[in-house]
Amino acid sequence: MDTHGGNIYRIERDYNIKKEDILDFSSNINPLGLPPELKQTLIKNIDKIKNYPDPDYADLTQNIARYNNIDPETIVPGNGAAELIYLLPRVFKPQRALIIAPCFSEYALSLKHTGTEINYFKLNEEDFKINLKKILKEISKNYDLIYICSPNNPTGTFTNINIVQELLFCAQNKNTLFIIDESFIEFIEGWRERSSMKLAPAYHNLFIIRSFTKFFAIPGLRLGYCINFNREFIRKIKSIKEPWTVNILADLSSKILLNNSVYAENSLALIKKEKQFLIGSLKKIEQLKTYDSETNFILVKILCGTKSYELKEKLLKQNILIRDASNFAYLDDSFIRLAVKDRKSNRMLIHCIKKIFTRTP
Amino acid sequence: MDTHGGNIYRIERDYNIKKEDILDFSSNINPLGLPPELKQTLIKNIDKIKNYPDPDYADLTQNIARYNNIDPETIVPGNGAAELIYLLPRVFKPQRALIIAPCFSEYALSLKHTGTEINYFKLNEEDFKINLKKILKEISKNYDLIYICSPNNPTGTFTNINIVQELLFCAQNKNTLFIIDESFIEFIEGWRERSSMKLAPAYHNLFIIRSFTKFFAIPGLRLGYCINFNREFIRKIKSIKEPWTVNILADLSSKILLNNSVYAENSLALIKKEKQFLIGSLKKIEQLKTYDSETNFILVKILCGTKSYELKEKLLKQNILIRDASNFAYLDDSFIRLAVKDRKSNRMLIHCIKKIFTRTP
Repeated sequence: MDTHGGNIYRIERDYNIKKEDILDFSSNINPLGLPPELKQTLIKNIDKIKNYPDPDYADLTQNIARYNNIDPETIVPGNGAAELIYLLPRVFKPQRALIIAPCFSEYALSLKHTGTEINYFKLNEEDFKINLKKILKEISKNYDLIYICSPNNPTGTFTNINIVQELLFCAQNKNTLFIIDESFIEFIEGWRERSSMKLAPAYHNLFIIRSFTKFFAIPGLRLGYCINFNREFIRKIKSIKEPWTVNILADLSSKILLNNSVYAENSLALIKKEKQFLIGSLKKIEQLKTYDSETNFILVKILCGTKSYELKEKLLKQNILIRDASNFAYLDDSFIRLAVKDRKSNRMLIHCIKKIFTRTP
Repeated sequence: MDTHGGNIYRIERDYNIKKEDILDFSSNINPLGLPPELKQTLIKNIDKIKNYPDPDYADLTQNIARYNNIDPETIVPGNGAAELIYLLPRVFKPQRALIIAPCFSEYALSLKHTGTEINYFKLNEEDFKINLKKILKEISKNYDLIYICSPNNPTGTFTNINIVQELLFCAQNKNTLFIIDESFIEFIEGWRERSSMKLAPAYHNLFIIRSFTKFFAIPGLRLGYCINFNREFIRKIKSIKEPWTVNILADLSSKILLNNSVYAENSLALIKKEKQFLIGSLKKIEQLKTYDSETNFILVKILCGTKSYELKEKLLKQNILIRDASNFAYLDDSFIRLAVKDRKSNRMLIHCIKKIFTRTP
């Protein structure tokens, strides 16, 4: 069982399928692929690896600041969102944390290293949406740190800004820090209006984590960032953060990526169309319950008794890799997660799933 | 004052000198520059950034294992040596550490985050060599962790394997862990015979840290590793290490770098010749005490009262950047550190230093 999607290396080793031949629905990467301008920029600048990265990451934070229309002083760049997910608990040493789950497994893993007591707020399997009244009651119980992943991996749900604001207000009164992982935010139509970034100037307990990995299709390059409006918190994070964690190619890619509105528009159009196709097709398969998604991946529950790992194994015979979602908290081996890909791949996936369920009585 | 050398970004911002125009003697990078084969490999494989790195880094550890003729299971790769320097104290939570100093400042910085009591063993300014009798006495005082940088940054001294073995033996009897930072080992002639790697199978308390940054001239790419022969220690490190810290371009560069014996030989030949030239020239300047060096940088003490920051400022007027070494423990503002570069640059440096000291009465 893999901890994460996208481990095509293990599939190559264990199943003898060449990495290049795997149709990977297990990692939630933009199906539009690398922005071509990025490739050109990296090739042109490849010589720069002979220099250390700027330890202050001045250009990088400036580019991120402009993209989000915020002060560079509120930004801490990281070696992927993962560095920041692990860094924040080390800095703030929470004694008790609350994780709204099912969600990305790394929050809990990072808290194990700080000896934090981990509590979960369970989302209802019916639609995985937050029940405001229940969660407000839970938040009032004096946590040091609360996590929300929004859009939420693996459920595809999004927590609206008005709900986030109520939670933040309640948390602030309790001196509770609040991490919102917006790694998938740019896949949402109208995301600038819907992001919790707007709340950051007023709520200094809010940390927003962002990733370049998913939307810009560069998981191998490693780039993410964190935003918080409390100067003292930022100073503390920077004093504990290791030097040079972002490599120089990731650093210099920010300019070309964050100014590429054509790529962003094309991505959203592609995702919209393909998500509609994929969800529409999946909903016609009676052995599956397909959840709606606000982002670029879809959670699916198998209703007919076939286990997630069985379906994964069967699809691998067709070189298709899906995410067995059974190791997410509160999910079981009836859940799988599927990335939205291009039409040809999506058709292939639907075709193979249908075939499997037609054969299985 | 910069914490480290190589911060050409701050020089560009503060002194209005273009990064590209700086003659950088402050960072200890191989003057041979990027291996040309590496550039070609990176350009050919640039598309791979669309994939996550292998979370097990199987090929990377295999390549490092072959290079050192050891078992891949003894290796933990990292995002530069820096990741490992910060990771080890987090994993082993030492209460009392001993640092043989002056040395690289990041050991002490990393220990501040773990609340470790930091003790220093001071090397004598005469030659910065270890006095075996004195240090054995010090080691017997029950430390949890001891650091040696060898070749030592910034002194250029090297601790011979027979001395290391005595220290390791004594430390092992006291259950003391031992970190040897060999980030500059490949700059030493006959380094394979002289590295402490040979001792690792017998001394399970030994952690060797290595870096690709310096010898392969790739500080922007970020790649290092750590070696230890205790399976339980390695398991513990891996359980606490964050996922995907090494980017995929650094990962795939290992093969081409570690199999490049021509580059290695040419580097050693160049360093030998240029170090001889630079040390020879510096020793003729009576205002300086120039220390001998076993590696690719040279420690120099200014004897005439000019301060290290004054000399740095004066040389910057000629676009030459040197390392003001005053912030190393037990060094003061009479110390500078100089990287060995190509003949043209070295001549320029000597010319400018001579001119400065001729003018100063």
